[in-house]
Amino acid sequence: MLEDKNPQKTSLAELGEFGLINHITQYFTVKNATTKYAVGDDAAVISNQDETLVTTDLLIEGVHFDLSYMPLKHLGYKAVMVNLSDVYAMNGKATQITVSIAVSNRFPLEAIEELYAGIQLACDTYQVDLVGGDTTSSTKGMLISVTAIGTAKAEDIVYRHGAKVTDLIVVTGDLGAAYLGLQVLEREKQVFAVDPKNQPDLDNYTYLIERQLKPEVRKDVVGWLKELDVKPTAMIDISDGLSSEIMHICSQSKVGCKIYEEKLPLDPQVISACEEFELDSTMVALSGGEDYELLFTVPIADFEKMKGNPNFSIIGHITEENQGLNLVTRASQEIELKAQGWNPMKEEV
Amino acid sequence: MLEDKNPQKTSLAELGEFGLINHITQYFTVKNATTKYAVGDDAAVISNQDETLVTTDLLIEGVHFDLSYMPLKHLGYKAVMVNLSDVYAMNGKATQITVSIAVSNRFPLEAIEELYAGIQLACDTYQVDLVGGDTTSSTKGMLISVTAIGTAKAEDIVYRHGAKVTDLIVVTGDLGAAYLGLQVLEREKQVFAVDPKNQPDLDNYTYLIERQLKPEVRKDVVGWLKELDVKPTAMIDISDGLSSEIMHICSQSKVGCKIYEEKLPLDPQVISACEEFELDSTMVALSGGEDYELLFTVPIADFEKMKGNPNFSIIGHITEENQGLNLVTRASQEIELKAQGWNPMKEEV
Repeated sequence: MLEDKNPQKTSLAELGEFGLINHITQYFTVKNATTKYAVGDDAAVISNQDETLVTTDLLIEGVHFDLSYMPLKHLGYKAVMVNLSDVYAMNGKATQITVSIAVSNRFPLEAIEELYAGIQLACDTYQVDLVGGDTTSSTKGMLISVTAIGTAKAEDIVYRHGAKVTDLIVVTGDLGAAYLGLQVLEREKQVFAVDPKNQPDLDNYTYLIERQLKPEVRKDVVGWLKELDVKPTAMIDISDGLSSEIMHICSQSKVGCKIYEEKLPLDPQVISACEEFELDSTMVALSGGEDYELLFTVPIADFEKMKGNPNFSIIGHITEENQGLNLVTRASQEIELKAQGWNPMKEEV
Repeated sequence: MLEDKNPQKTSLAELGEFGLINHITQYFTVKNATTKYAVGDDAAVISNQDETLVTTDLLIEGVHFDLSYMPLKHLGYKAVMVNLSDVYAMNGKATQITVSIAVSNRFPLEAIEELYAGIQLACDTYQVDLVGGDTTSSTKGMLISVTAIGTAKAEDIVYRHGAKVTDLIVVTGDLGAAYLGLQVLEREKQVFAVDPKNQPDLDNYTYLIERQLKPEVRKDVVGWLKELDVKPTAMIDISDGLSSEIMHICSQSKVGCKIYEEKLPLDPQVISACEEFELDSTMVALSGGEDYELLFTVPIADFEKMKGNPNFSIIGHITEENQGLNLVTRASQEIELKAQGWNPMKEEV
């Protein structure tokens, strides 16, 4: 998109910071009654009767995203998703976001408009208000810093630290697709570098690519849990990979766990892509990351409410802390779970 | 500081993201009863009875700060100040912050510790809790994204849009010093580049440099206004320069203004440095930026409460919108006010 021949390119310097803010926020409407004042003053004003949830994530070009295959509209959408996911992982309702961006002078206004079109779509889809932010220049590339605000009644909030021995471990949706989507896109990028005329056939990977480029987050699950009258004892969203997340729950809850390999939910495209890429699908499901599914624990008494529900997979149970964190393989062997989740500090930069 | 010969340099990759977060947050304590849960879960939990204020700012190396003369501890402190200032400008109480940082691999752990020492000092001094954030790597340089959360009773909040004709225009402290501090530091940087052995004598510029490197923000003013039983009709903090800020108040309040040149509060160091740098002190006061003073309007009926108070300077009054924005010079000439405030989008990058 950045490479197209569109002759109408407006420089950000012409518009200035305040002009840019006015331009990009003009189409955003306020959807939540708790948003008393959004963009345009020193601070936004939010009127929450219940507890306020706050979470923030930073996405950096060349570290978290690659604009050679990530359209800017998708990037804007995903930057919001990543943050909303954390609010839902507290069993809360996401209500507001702030978005700060820094862009180098290689980006014209039209690129920023694309980015904000994605942010707006996310706000509309998830009924969230844009209430503030900052726009500035960067010396290299683009970065987006989003803070999400949410709300929940104090008694509804689910932390990571409440898992109890014998609790069931449940995961929503399926795992590993976003990671494989990234592998497909990286491969196509290499192919394109060698042969720019090659037209990739991505029909077999549509689900994987969508999970990578336009992830949806589990607002719906928060609603379903309420309908089922289930309050998880602990919950976290899967951003760094299942292994890494279950470790957070177990260490903060001071418990162990047993995860059953055969119970890990995999989409058929994940299985076929793993064969093609010669990857172990269990490893991909455990360590892939960016699934933005919810991982939670519920008392065993809730088994009847959870079982047979296609939205939930019961993948294991909580054990005593001294039993450690274990994966029970299809061959009924127990092996220690290791976090291989993504560590942004270990990236080569 | 980054250039010293300290042999103990710990790489961030060794520690990993979660190790780093644990390491840098271990000395932070929670000071506000409204902070129900700080760092360590998907989101922080805040329990506000009153309205919640949210504001965010992004600082980027090479655009907003230069580490060749900005010590990392000061940078951490200032990054918090910039955000708290916006909460005070709403007549609110700052209570929580989130801090996201991205650093290239040229920064060892010890550098990040310095940065967080400054953030912690700011949190202790202003009684604010660190409740979340994100740490990641960058492909170039350092950046800091801070979101500040505050609280205020709905009836106490002061917006930019409430200024009325005949209101007095008041500014706290003095203006222009932070800008001149930057000029001094930039000059020393040039001198150092030519002659690294030269030891600068900065005694005549201590106030200017402190205003640039370690600004304080006006929490005290919010308290004084309450004690005086004065509620401003409009308020904004001075980050981009007085001209730019009064324009925001006037355009949002749909009024004009008259500012008196002779009333602009200038520190003696500002006056002498302006002579040395051959700068017009009025221009510096109007357009310098980064003063983090408060600019507000009060009904003329509050004149008795404001006059003679050394903390406040009455610099003009609000006029009808069609009269425009004017500066009355010492020679009693009226000239149109123009914003020359800093536009980060116009920087050469």
